[in-house]
Amino acid sequence: MYGYHKNKEDVLGRLRRIEGQVRGLHRMVEQDKYCIDILTQISAATRALDTVAVRLLDDHLHHCVKEALAGDEEDGQRMVEEASAAIERLVKS
Amino acid sequence: MYGYHKNKEDVLGRLRRIEGQVRGLHRMVEQDKYCIDILTQISAATRALDTVAVRLLDDHLHHCVKEALAGDEEDGQRMVEEASAAIERLVKS
Amino acid sequence: MYGYHKNKEDVLGRLRRIEGQVRGLHRMVEQDKYCIDILTQISAATRALDTVAVRLLDDHLHHCVKEALAGDEEDGQRMVEEASAAIERLVKS
Amino acid sequence: MYGYHKNKEDVLGRLRRIEGQVRGLHRMVEQDKYCIDILTQISAATRALDTVAVRLLDDHLHHCVKEALAGDEEDGQRMVEEASAAIERLVKS
Repeated sequence: MYGYHKNKEDVLGRLRRIEGQVRGLHRMVEQDKYCIDILTQISAATRALDTVAVRLLDDHLHHCVKEALAGDEEDGQRMVEEASAAIERLVKS
Repeated sequence: MYGYHKNKEDVLGRLRRIEGQVRGLHRMVEQDKYCIDILTQISAATRALDTVAVRLLDDHLHHCVKEALAGDEEDGQRMVEEASAAIERLVKS
Repeated sequence: MYGYHKNKEDVLGRLRRIEGQVRGLHRMVEQDKYCIDILTQISAATRALDTVAVRLLDDHLHHCVKEALAGDEEDGQRMVEEASAAIERLVKS
Repeated sequence: MYGYHKNKEDVLGRLRRIEGQVRGLHRMVEQDKYCIDILTQISAATRALDTVAVRLLDDHLHHCVKEALAGDEEDGQRMVEEASAAIERLVKS
């Protein structure tokens, strides 16, 4: 309904794996694993979340264009505004 | 011509200031200023560059929608693909 | 044993909450929630992971100094090398 | 004097090149170059700044350990606190 059908299954699979990664991080800290190894895993989880974000944005942007084409330019432009704000939060986080 | 007229003056002013910031960083290192103060300045310059990137993307995305509306949906969608790839590089850098 | 006792409980609590956030993200995608709201949640989860990383690094670095003081400068310096490499991965992810 | 002698020449060279990159970005925007190409250059400049930051931190951290060994543990630990705060700003920018 909101336009990310294309990547939905891919995104759901990624989120499932990230949940597993975070659970693994919890276990590593609990067992006092070496800090640097934990940090490596955190970098991997962060990058995996970034990939999910980019996939969702990709669907959203394609959807903006379609929306505008469907006759509602204003709606398309408003969705672009929201996308820009979301990109700003992602790039700066 | 490429659609970022809206933010062009703003972006040029920002880039001018960032150039000054980087020159200031060079001076700080040369004069052996305290490392932590230099790092604070680097964070500021990085954030300033991110803001420029978000401004340019914002113009680009509005332009994609317009392009599609002007009758060339394929062109609009291709520009969205390129934008997604650029966002990925930004989010992961 | 690896020196992050100071922040251990804090870090475990954060990881537990992040796991919940990621599970929430999965649910949002499944239910076709609005893309931009999902992206906002991803930014929050990413920042939360970054905070965990910084807490772990903080403990690690204090530990490096202690290690060096305990008579093993070489070990302290090697741990700093590893920390620098980990910071590079974090900063660039 | 502040401990980043090891990487000083390397860092100065990098900053000089980044200044050139930012000047190049200004020119690209002025000449209305294609937005996506400009974004690619911004990603490169951002990564280059991150590398400078990591190099400076590396020197700083080695210096912390040396400082502590030179008999001033308190000073070493205080410098670690400052480094952690700087890392947090970098990771979140």
